[in-house]
Amino acid sequence: MSSSSPSPRRVAIVGATGAVGREMVDVLHRRSFPVAELGLFASERSAGRTVETPFGEKTLVAFDVEKVKGYDIVLLAVSGDFAKAHAPAIAAGGALVIDNSSAFRYDDNVPLIVPEINAHAMGDAKLIANPNCTTAIAVVALGPLHKAFGLKRVIVSTYQATSGAGAEGMAELEEQTRNQLDGKPVTNSVFRHPIPFNLIPQIDAFQENGYTKEEMKVTWETRKILEIPDLPVSCTAVRIPTYRAHSEAITVETLTPVTPDAARAALADAPGVVVKDVPADGVYPMPLNATGQFDVEVGRIRTSLIFGDHGLDLFVCGDQLLKGAALNAVQIAELSL
Amino acid sequence: MSSSSPSPRRVAIVGATGAVGREMVDVLHRRSFPVAELGLFASERSAGRTVETPFGEKTLVAFDVEKVKGYDIVLLAVSGDFAKAHAPAIAAGGALVIDNSSAFRYDDNVPLIVPEINAHAMGDAKLIANPNCTTAIAVVALGPLHKAFGLKRVIVSTYQATSGAGAEGMAELEEQTRNQLDGKPVTNSVFRHPIPFNLIPQIDAFQENGYTKEEMKVTWETRKILEIPDLPVSCTAVRIPTYRAHSEAITVETLTPVTPDAARAALADAPGVVVKDVPADGVYPMPLNATGQFDVEVGRIRTSLIFGDHGLDLFVCGDQLLKGAALNAVQIAELSL
Repeated sequence: MSSSSPSPRRVAIVGATGAVGREMVDVLHRRSFPVAELGLFASERSAGRTVETPFGEKTLVAFDVEKVKGYDIVLLAVSGDFAKAHAPAIAAGGALVIDNSSAFRYDDNVPLIVPEINAHAMGDAKLIANPNCTTAIAVVALGPLHKAFGLKRVIVSTYQATSGAGAEGMAELEEQTRNQLDGKPVTNSVFRHPIPFNLIPQIDAFQENGYTKEEMKVTWETRKILEIPDLPVSCTAVRIPTYRAHSEAITVETLTPVTPDAARAALADAPGVVVKDVPADGVYPMPLNATGQFDVEVGRIRTSLIFGDHGLDLFVCGDQLLKGAALNAVQIAELSL
Repeated sequence: MSSSSPSPRRVAIVGATGAVGREMVDVLHRRSFPVAELGLFASERSAGRTVETPFGEKTLVAFDVEKVKGYDIVLLAVSGDFAKAHAPAIAAGGALVIDNSSAFRYDDNVPLIVPEINAHAMGDAKLIANPNCTTAIAVVALGPLHKAFGLKRVIVSTYQATSGAGAEGMAELEEQTRNQLDGKPVTNSVFRHPIPFNLIPQIDAFQENGYTKEEMKVTWETRKILEIPDLPVSCTAVRIPTYRAHSEAITVETLTPVTPDAARAALADAPGVVVKDVPADGVYPMPLNATGQFDVEVGRIRTSLIFGDHGLDLFVCGDQLLKGAALNAVQIAELSL
């Protein structure tokens, strides 16, 4: 954001009734984004309904590509297929389109942006991809470590919240947990297996190499955002019965020697990160605290028992709907001010 | 177990009212252990109370080292301090003592046994240590992989159930989850932080190197059981809101090339393991299925993106109270038959 007061923008959110869309409205307000006009677009089914927002009562409008083209900034919180079908036309109409789906993330011509890390890669593109939630949360910690020590290898195990499956995912966790506690039958429709008091080591579809698409997104997107095309990154992505903050156990091997203190110093100075690392006092990243927060919590920083003075173990936790989606999208929009 | 019918043994369980002690009684029965007499020892507070068991109604007896000495086999499900104070005297009296605490695990003179992996190390010792639950579950999968391909490095991230903190841990999960769903205040006394819909990246106390004792147990005990004294093993141990099965995401680097098929073949032949690895059908290890089962589930087996053809990623899940504690202890007792 430039230091002079930026001119207000006309902002559209497409998919405004979903978990991410609703957070986008809130984040625009929390960050005092200069909104001249806010258009909330949804499906035919929701159109006409009014919703309370921090910007006043708004009426949901049925999506229409021509109507959306009139906005300065269009935030897409829709499926990949929907984005593929409409994002290029909206961008060609002159709006800055920020797409939360994976449709364009691996397109060499579309910047994939986490503002704290690679704002420079945005250029004058009119279509920007917002990264996978797990990746966005990881790279705000990995970026500063790469800058300071160079990353050689990254191993990630995730503890992902039900919000990754949208509002329906969180609702299924709550309802089915209640059923289990009440001794009623536990069912599942959003998730492939029952989620209460369970975990599911599958997020998204399996690829030929045995990794899920979610796991490969972490590999592909971390490489693109950090601009290390051949960085070895592996991930195990696991859904756990939490609501909306993703956690990740990360092991890194570095190119130059690193100490936990040096890593903490690098992270303390980094934007978007808060170091929560006083283990003796029980201070470390947890969904309980990270939920609703913009910053990604980083802690449990210690010398790797595998890679010695060229490695670290750490634990990160960030709000999946915020840094993992809505916040990052709004931060990208801020880069255009 | 020898092929001829072994002579029945007099078995004592010390700490019989705890979560592990109660499972020990059940496991003795489920495995048709030849029990001549079953003595259930507990604190003064519980003494005199009767409990229903598969071996009939039993009266809890206040612990007394002299009384316990009369048994052939003594299973200790007690604290490390208690074990330290009494186990040597009981073993010196002639009983086979199997201790579930960490008191003797790192004593070079005390075998640390997972029967599927290192039964040979038991020798004629009268005091045997039962390993840490996370380690026991991991090594039934790691042992066969080491035998077939040689282990060079092991990286573990855990998803540990509340049963690791005993019956009180499971009760706190249930009660506090109910409170949270009912909008009542959520408190914590067993765990350092509230556990419902949260996770806690701390199990046991922090060590000087920044790892918790639980994490270092995985390192120390894996090395001892697999008989690879300098094996690099690192662990991140995380408590999640599940009841009684621990899961672990494991990355291994091997000494010789390995394929997922070769790993599956090695594991399919291994005792104590069940390969659950048909990801396209949603078949992989999960607490939902592993709970109450003797075998450790292993799946998500794939070529490591970090170590290439010299590495694997896998996911394991085992019942913490069974293979992680009571079952392994009874299996050790079986070795003496």
